Amino acid sequence: MSSAAPQVGQLTVIGLGPGATDWMTPAVKLALELAQDIVGYTTYVTLAGPFRPEQRLLDSDNRCELERARLALELAAQGRRVVVVSSGDPGVFAMAAAVLEALEQAADPTWHEVELTIEPGISAAHATAARVGAPLGHDFCVISLSDNLKPWALIVRRLELAAQADFVIALYNPSSKARPWQLAQALEVLRQQRAPTTPVILGHDVGRTAERVTVTTLAEIEPEQVDMRTIVIIGSSQTRQFPRWDGATWVYTPRWYPAE
Amino acid sequence: MSSAAPQVGQLTVIGLGPGATDWMTPAVKLALELAQDIVGYTTYVTLAGPFRPEQRLLDSDNRCELERARLALELAAQGRRVVVVSSGDPGVFAMAAAVLEALEQAADPTWHEVELTIEPGISAAHATAARVGAPLGHDFCVISLSDNLKPWALIVRRLELAAQADFVIALYNPSSKARPWQLAQALEVLRQQRAPTTPVILGHDVGRTAERVTVTTLAEIEPEQVDMRTIVIIGSSQTRQFPRWDGATWVYTPRWYPAE
Repeated sequence: MSSAAPQVGQLTVIGLGPGATDWMTPAVKLALELAQDIVGYTTYVTLAGPFRPEQRLLDSDNRCELERARLALELAAQGRRVVVVSSGDPGVFAMAAAVLEALEQAADPTWHEVELTIEPGISAAHATAARVGAPLGHDFCVISLSDNLKPWALIVRRLELAAQADFVIALYNPSSKARPWQLAQALEVLRQQRAPTTPVILGHDVGRTAERVTVTTLAEIEPEQVDMRTIVIIGSSQTRQFPRWDGATWVYTPRWYPAE
Repeated sequence: MSSAAPQVGQLTVIGLGPGATDWMTPAVKLALELAQDIVGYTTYVTLAGPFRPEQRLLDSDNRCELERARLALELAAQGRRVVVVSSGDPGVFAMAAAVLEALEQAADPTWHEVELTIEPGISAAHATAARVGAPLGHDFCVISLSDNLKPWALIVRRLELAAQADFVIALYNPSSKARPWQLAQALEVLRQQRAPTTPVILGHDVGRTAERVTVTTLAEIEPEQVDMRTIVIIGSSQTRQFPRWDGATWVYTPRWYPAE
């Protein structure tokens, strides 16, 4: 009698999108329905619900992403159908990279046999951009201002080079209680190369009930307007703004760029 | 008797996502259901269907995006419910910027009263990234290689600065029959600053029936592997790859960056 092959499970790393269910893809909804175990940061797992009683919620406020990734891989290796929840897109400063890192380091060969899928979501930068028009309509870059996992000097250098390249710049993790001064310094770097009138968009909790979108300028933005749940988009030299009939502001970056 | 206020319509610029319907958001599906007029490039309008007989399809192979944007605004100003179709995200090298540009230039005040909404979609870069793991897991930039609307010298400069910043780089519009040499020159620029072993991902028609995803390296990529419907993602110095159990390759960029 041959022994049965080990029953290896599935792990799907999903992006909820910014939070509104009408921005969540059918593929992500299906993964949530099929999941036996739901792993993630409590805020995102709550957004992903409601769940059925037999679905096991393994959420926590723990910010150790690698530990969470290992838990999910271990459960899937045991044969469970597991979902890891990220907000926005799971591949952008979120759980997909942590799961891949945990998998690469895994000694247990069963982890490598897990049926692993990454399910993309609407990223917070694209959602914020959509609210005000099309500020990411031309070449752009996406930078996390968090220096928890990379040196601050690297972030400053990237900001300087991105400004020289005249990219539109989307900033993730711009500020937190533990990182109170970084945004002000980043804005100083950008102000040395971009006009004071450069449009700046602040997208707070876009797609959720507390959504608040502000259009300001590089001269006028105050770091106090920004928290951890805000995406900051800084225009290029070409980014334009004009009034909406309702008093708000449209912002877009033209598809073309003038010859020098 | 007071004259009735002019009945101004709605214009929704939607992103289908890469093509697979399970990656299309409910908000986009609803906009398509409610639309009276559907405006867009024929390939994308076909992807967005099927439509009901009373829905009017105003699709064409015309690449004049500004003209298409004006048609859509004019119809909405007449009171119609109009959808403009983009693939991927409408704010990334797509129709949202064209509609905003047409609107800013509009002399007719009725155009400005149109209820204009941008509905985000899964971008081709995020979809391609998801297929191989998490190559966009750290700071990245997105550059269109098309020099139809911007000087080639600007593109080269942006590539040089992006390489110096050690961004992961996602290239849109990498190649076409009318632009046969640009990709080879772009790769030359990047090869001067990045290791030959740098992972490169080619995502052709991701999310559609002709999907083909290839993981190669900066040394080995041949421009002939790439066409207009391919997204090219070039890793940073930190991007890693390792084998999948099924013979394919995982690629990810770690969330951390080493101190120098």
